[in-house]
Amino acid sequence: MKLATYAGSAGPQTGLIVGDTLVPTGLAHDMIGLITDWEELRGQLAEKAASGAGIPLADVTLLAPVPRPGKVFAIGLNYADHIAESKMETPEHQLWFTKAVTSINAPFAPVQIAKGTATVDYEVELVAVIGKRGRHIRAADAKHHIFGYCVGNDVTERFWQHRTRQWSLGKSFDTHAPIGPWITTADEIADPHALDIRCSVNGEVRQNSNTSHLVFNVWQQIEHLSTAMTLEPGDLIFTGTPGGVGAAMDPKQFLQPGDVVRCEVGGLGAIEAVMEAEA
Amino acid sequence: MKLATYAGSAGPQTGLIVGDTLVPTGLAHDMIGLITDWEELRGQLAEKAASGAGIPLADVTLLAPVPRPGKVFAIGLNYADHIAESKMETPEHQLWFTKAVTSINAPFAPVQIAKGTATVDYEVELVAVIGKRGRHIRAADAKHHIFGYCVGNDVTERFWQHRTRQWSLGKSFDTHAPIGPWITTADEIADPHALDIRCSVNGEVRQNSNTSHLVFNVWQQIEHLSTAMTLEPGDLIFTGTPGGVGAAMDPKQFLQPGDVVRCEVGGLGAIEAVMEAEA
Repeated sequence: MKLATYAGSAGPQTGLIVGDTLVPTGLAHDMIGLITDWEELRGQLAEKAASGAGIPLADVTLLAPVPRPGKVFAIGLNYADHIAESKMETPEHQLWFTKAVTSINAPFAPVQIAKGTATVDYEVELVAVIGKRGRHIRAADAKHHIFGYCVGNDVTERFWQHRTRQWSLGKSFDTHAPIGPWITTADEIADPHALDIRCSVNGEVRQNSNTSHLVFNVWQQIEHLSTAMTLEPGDLIFTGTPGGVGAAMDPKQFLQPGDVVRCEVGGLGAIEAVMEAEA
Repeated sequence: MKLATYAGSAGPQTGLIVGDTLVPTGLAHDMIGLITDWEELRGQLAEKAASGAGIPLADVTLLAPVPRPGKVFAIGLNYADHIAESKMETPEHQLWFTKAVTSINAPFAPVQIAKGTATVDYEVELVAVIGKRGRHIRAADAKHHIFGYCVGNDVTERFWQHRTRQWSLGKSFDTHAPIGPWITTADEIADPHALDIRCSVNGEVRQNSNTSHLVFNVWQQIEHLSTAMTLEPGDLIFTGTPGGVGAAMDPKQFLQPGDVVRCEVGGLGAIEAVMEAEA
């Protein structure tokens, strides 16, 4: 199934994506509630999806599928070509930073270039959405803890990222974590490590790779993170970006107001943002 | 006023600390709700506090005053003596990392030494609790965005902190962010930059300083963070730890099961944890 959060008449609502339509779930649950109660809800939701009473997607405003996750962790330097272009060495251990929950953005909403900043960059990523709560999850069991996947753009303010040795602040500007367009449940993805992943700016392809090139795969990422902390339903894991970021171009190319950034992952759809200067 | 979250018969409830007693607010709000609606609630809560119908604190189990904040940001290397003992240079810019929301712990609950780890350390800190939502907050206005203050222990797994260049994962183990014992509203703290701050282990004083020694003060911290992101009610800011951490002792002294770690800040009370091996 494909699950979305959208702007309903009385606030955010959840819906099922069926073809080019959205079928409202009619449930009071937000997405985290829906993920938490998934085992008891999936039957009725599958029936609802089959009912076909959908709203054309063109008439719907999609929101971030998980508008307010508990945690957003993101791994750095996790594709060989991105490591090379960043002139870094392949990390011996997984390199984790965070994105603030207030950076979460809707899949087609504008992304801001904040006042006083000029080095905003894109990073398309496969995002895993945690389903089942757990700690000390083994890689071999990790897939049972994943609810589904979506596309993410780990938008980064490069000057702030590198102003100190800690990256999390430069990764956490408001609007800098667009995700979506919806969550595709894990049962529909035969192998998350065989998905084409691509980012284009104004139609020019900048990043173009496949998740088969992840240095640390998704299962290893979940094992590592859960060594330290409990993963909870709706937590988001940004699994790394391939080569082709603007900061590695010669000359460097940072995003400008009006640029259109499109991020897509095979089988998961695409998200697209117009860059805008913060008012 | 002093505001606590405690274990009520039907789940977490909020209360007012009056002397050695807790007066239930009787409100359905959680702490973030209470902070959000503070202007309309403070009058009735002040009356309730004066009513005197309290439960002895000895009969109450205090929980983390904000059990589930949106964001937890913490600044590194922000007291001169801690910078010296860490053999680091004074950062030119504020150095921020995060603690996962799942690391939040009650003020008197045990703190875990996770399986496979052996280098857990204490860091007493003054914690600012955001009251009023805001972005691009000037240092001169920052105090109007602070709801209050509490004591925090930025418990750190040193091996994981330094395993990679990014600190956030080693700062985010479950139970590693005890806070409390309650929030003292900002109007009761004449100057947050003139508070004694102290940590002891098994009664031996290890850290003993004053918040007057902060490199970047609380107002500057709020200005800097809010350049990037919207601060929201209940967000927590760990404002730095003074010298005296176990990792800087010779020989290094890490926390062992059974150790009692007490953290206190003048006017805000004390929190205390027994260290325990993760089961």
